[in-house]
Amino acid sequence: MWLRTCCDLAFDIGVPTPFVLMLRPRSGAQQWVAREEYRLTPYVPVHEFTDGFGNLCQRFVAPPGRFSVHTAAEVKTADSIDRAPGAPFVEIQQLPDDVLGYLLPSRYCESDRFGAMATEIVAGAAPGYDQVATIENWLRNSIRFLPGSSDQPLSASEVEARGFGVCRDLAHLGIALCRGISIPARLVVGYLHGLEPMDLHAWFEAYVGGRWYAFDATRSELHAGYVSTGYGRDAADVAIYTQFGPPVYPVLQKVEVRRGAAPQETTSNGS
Amino acid sequence: MWLRTCCDLAFDIGVPTPFVLMLRPRSGAQQWVAREEYRLTPYVPVHEFTDGFGNLCQRFVAPPGRFSVHTAAEVKTADSIDRAPGAPFVEIQQLPDDVLGYLLPSRYCESDRFGAMATEIVAGAAPGYDQVATIENWLRNSIRFLPGSSDQPLSASEVEARGFGVCRDLAHLGIALCRGISIPARLVVGYLHGLEPMDLHAWFEAYVGGRWYAFDATRSELHAGYVSTGYGRDAADVAIYTQFGPPVYPVLQKVEVRRGAAPQETTSNGS
Amino acid sequence: MWLRTCCDLAFDIGVPTPFVLMLRPRSGAQQWVAREEYRLTPYVPVHEFTDGFGNLCQRFVAPPGRFSVHTAAEVKTADSIDRAPGAPFVEIQQLPDDVLGYLLPSRYCESDRFGAMATEIVAGAAPGYDQVATIENWLRNSIRFLPGSSDQPLSASEVEARGFGVCRDLAHLGIALCRGISIPARLVVGYLHGLEPMDLHAWFEAYVGGRWYAFDATRSELHAGYVSTGYGRDAADVAIYTQFGPPVYPVLQKVEVRRGAAPQETTSNGS
Amino acid sequence: MWLRTCCDLAFDIGVPTPFVLMLRPRSGAQQWVAREEYRLTPYVPVHEFTDGFGNLCQRFVAPPGRFSVHTAAEVKTADSIDRAPGAPFVEIQQLPDDVLGYLLPSRYCESDRFGAMATEIVAGAAPGYDQVATIENWLRNSIRFLPGSSDQPLSASEVEARGFGVCRDLAHLGIALCRGISIPARLVVGYLHGLEPMDLHAWFEAYVGGRWYAFDATRSELHAGYVSTGYGRDAADVAIYTQFGPPVYPVLQKVEVRRGAAPQETTSNGS
Repeated sequence: MWLRTCCDLAFDIGVPTPFVLMLRPRSGAQQWVAREEYRLTPYVPVHEFTDGFGNLCQRFVAPPGRFSVHTAAEVKTADSIDRAPGAPFVEIQQLPDDVLGYLLPSRYCESDRFGAMATEIVAGAAPGYDQVATIENWLRNSIRFLPGSSDQPLSASEVEARGFGVCRDLAHLGIALCRGISIPARLVVGYLHGLEPMDLHAWFEAYVGGRWYAFDATRSELHAGYVSTGYGRDAADVAIYTQFGPPVYPVLQKVEVRRGAAPQETTSNGS
Repeated sequence: MWLRTCCDLAFDIGVPTPFVLMLRPRSGAQQWVAREEYRLTPYVPVHEFTDGFGNLCQRFVAPPGRFSVHTAAEVKTADSIDRAPGAPFVEIQQLPDDVLGYLLPSRYCESDRFGAMATEIVAGAAPGYDQVATIENWLRNSIRFLPGSSDQPLSASEVEARGFGVCRDLAHLGIALCRGISIPARLVVGYLHGLEPMDLHAWFEAYVGGRWYAFDATRSELHAGYVSTGYGRDAADVAIYTQFGPPVYPVLQKVEVRRGAAPQETTSNGS
Repeated sequence: MWLRTCCDLAFDIGVPTPFVLMLRPRSGAQQWVAREEYRLTPYVPVHEFTDGFGNLCQRFVAPPGRFSVHTAAEVKTADSIDRAPGAPFVEIQQLPDDVLGYLLPSRYCESDRFGAMATEIVAGAAPGYDQVATIENWLRNSIRFLPGSSDQPLSASEVEARGFGVCRDLAHLGIALCRGISIPARLVVGYLHGLEPMDLHAWFEAYVGGRWYAFDATRSELHAGYVSTGYGRDAADVAIYTQFGPPVYPVLQKVEVRRGAAPQETTSNGS
Repeated sequence: MWLRTCCDLAFDIGVPTPFVLMLRPRSGAQQWVAREEYRLTPYVPVHEFTDGFGNLCQRFVAPPGRFSVHTAAEVKTADSIDRAPGAPFVEIQQLPDDVLGYLLPSRYCESDRFGAMATEIVAGAAPGYDQVATIENWLRNSIRFLPGSSDQPLSASEVEARGFGVCRDLAHLGIALCRGISIPARLVVGYLHGLEPMDLHAWFEAYVGGRWYAFDATRSELHAGYVSTGYGRDAADVAIYTQFGPPVYPVLQKVEVRRGAAPQETTSNGS
């Protein structure tokens, strides 16, 4: 399935403001970025680096005035989301070194306080994928998905107390529950085709059966159409933009995901 | 100043238990590890790796029964702690890529909620080192240092609400306040000569004037005698031991820091 | 200056053949990638990773038959190449850890055998930038730039003995000479506007005065128009494609670099 | 098997000389460092870092005069070296990202020129471990092991032309041959109990059957008694010391490897 994603951000900047952006999808086994466009207006010098999670991050200082960011991509994504009922729990001692960190509590996923609750939720499920699927299902039934219900990230504890939340909130609680039973889990930020209302999206992945699998408690069922742009332990690591100094809020945040743009059609104006 | 540090831990293990230890001091500009001893009893195969913060971590599975860890070191440390009143704030865009992460909120340092409070505390102080020194002093006067007052890590918000805490608690609040005014800050775990009662210690470092400087609100004044064993964003990253599965508590945790052990004296039995 | 770069490769594959490609320019202080296009025909699953030099690498297995790679980019590059006559030599102990490796000899830059020769060439030049400029100039006068004179990479010793070479050959010898006097140097591969005959290009960078500067002995003078796609110690690290198994040679390798493609013009069909 | 290793180096330094040392064994699945001693005389500030191969490196500037380095360790090593006849060749596309680099040619292993020769040598051997064992055996029969025959590292081509060499030379040729048939290979530097004459030792490892296995063409058969201190692509990466500026040669290099030092005996003076 080919998808065209597009994200436009605009800010009214008062004083020179350092930014870090994390908006670039990367090619991986489940998605291929065939075209990408990235435009800052006005143009400013940018330093790009790869963070500890493998994300491509852009650092720059936005000058006073209207500052806009345009990013678009044409991405081939998997036609169906990989699922693996029965995939086993990976013993801690078998986890790759760089997966270990996804077992630790983090800013918005206080997994150190969710062990008992997680154990109760997954009672009876086979260790591994089925436990995570049970957690995902528990989230669907217990935490109401309410787009627009919060601007700032909430922690798993806050989400659990509140009983409703945005996509990121459900993912944070899911992650905290997974880690609570020693299953590595991470936040994914990106796009989802068909999302209503359209916006950037967040879901989570759990490491079972020797690899990462996607879970999304905001959907009744997982369909294809996901494009990942960033990975991290939680929203603190993987904000689409991190801004320093006096807070600046976007005056525009427009997201589009459309099907199409077969690669052949782009040949003539591509080179 | 030469110091001999020693830490003994013992656990009664019920089921095979995966551990990650982080107890090895590393040589750096301010300390030199001349001798080191590390013993697990019984002996088990160990895999060592360097984590994302530069810490040497040991992974292994402890077998059922009494399991003990003995680690000792002879370390040359600086005769006085570096201080730099007046060292300037480093503009975000000048920070090294790998320091940026220390500006983000983390599990026990919810810096995203401490901006206003930090700004109020440092009012009037010169941006940079002096702001951190003001925060350190505010901690001394506002949060009572009460060794033994908590077993589990508390977050900066919890510490602030409570008004007292262990060394780690004061450090967490200090870190959250620094990050709240865009100064990178990290937790340091290690040893302190002369600590009463003797135990492992925690303090924090802030990045100002182009390098990291140590701060410790549990002391009325900073004297030499620190040996660092680990660095991280907060206690979630830099636990001396992380254990997975059913909780296991140490039946023994003995820490010693003595002066002495000049390097010449160790020659004869060293080889 | 806006440049549109384009590189088309095609191979006739006999047996499934693993490839690693390194063709993606990255945004940095001196270039900004506003649009990028990347197409494999037929489409195959790709795994992308960042190598130890910061390059984005794509791994995949090309199936039997005609296999083609199309990559294009619109890049804003600096209007003039930074130069810094007089920039000082950086003392070894002041070099960043990750620059140290660029002092070591490597496959095609046997710098361990060029100390005496380099010392002689730079006699009288001020330590640092001026030494490298002297080496660059010596290369211009001593090694004839002969496009098409070799297919396989040659080492610095071979180039010096031969007295002529392609762009990569001159760069290898320049790097070996720089390292011979303890100046870190690395190979850069990419595009150069106006190159005749048009092809991919290679030049080198030296670390003096606290940063990397570009040098290119194939030009009588450095003009703007460079787009970097990869960095490494020499051509072994930074091949545009590395292929494993029975050798496969491109049946097509077409490179284009054109001026233009102002970012405004791309807006309408960009989203 | 418990081993006590010891290495003493001494230099007569004329001008302040930057050094990088790589002499610290690390704990891994096959060895455990129970005690370690490290002494520089006179004492100088040291910066330690982990290089791209996982080695612990120490940077410092040696002052004029006699400068000595003493390092000793008590290490538990495996009682027998792992062997795996029949272990299969790992397809390139299955290799971990960080193993890929060990397929590339490097300073002293011009594997790009050993494909035909390697193919001929391993003719008939099962792909994987058996091919490497065949190469190891070919080295035993074709290249005479002659301790002390060279001071400077030689490349695989030079070794092959010469027909004899030190341990490092045989390893370089073995590595080039392995890479020539797309088997990742790396140099290991360390200690070997029972070596005559005693000195630091070098051997190589090949990645087959999903992990690294040791090979050593200088022994007629592999016995236990190896302690690794460093890994790299070849001797350029993994010199026990790298020194910059006017060459300085050790006036003393003394190596000892003894059996013994059971961990219990060290308890009383260890803490």
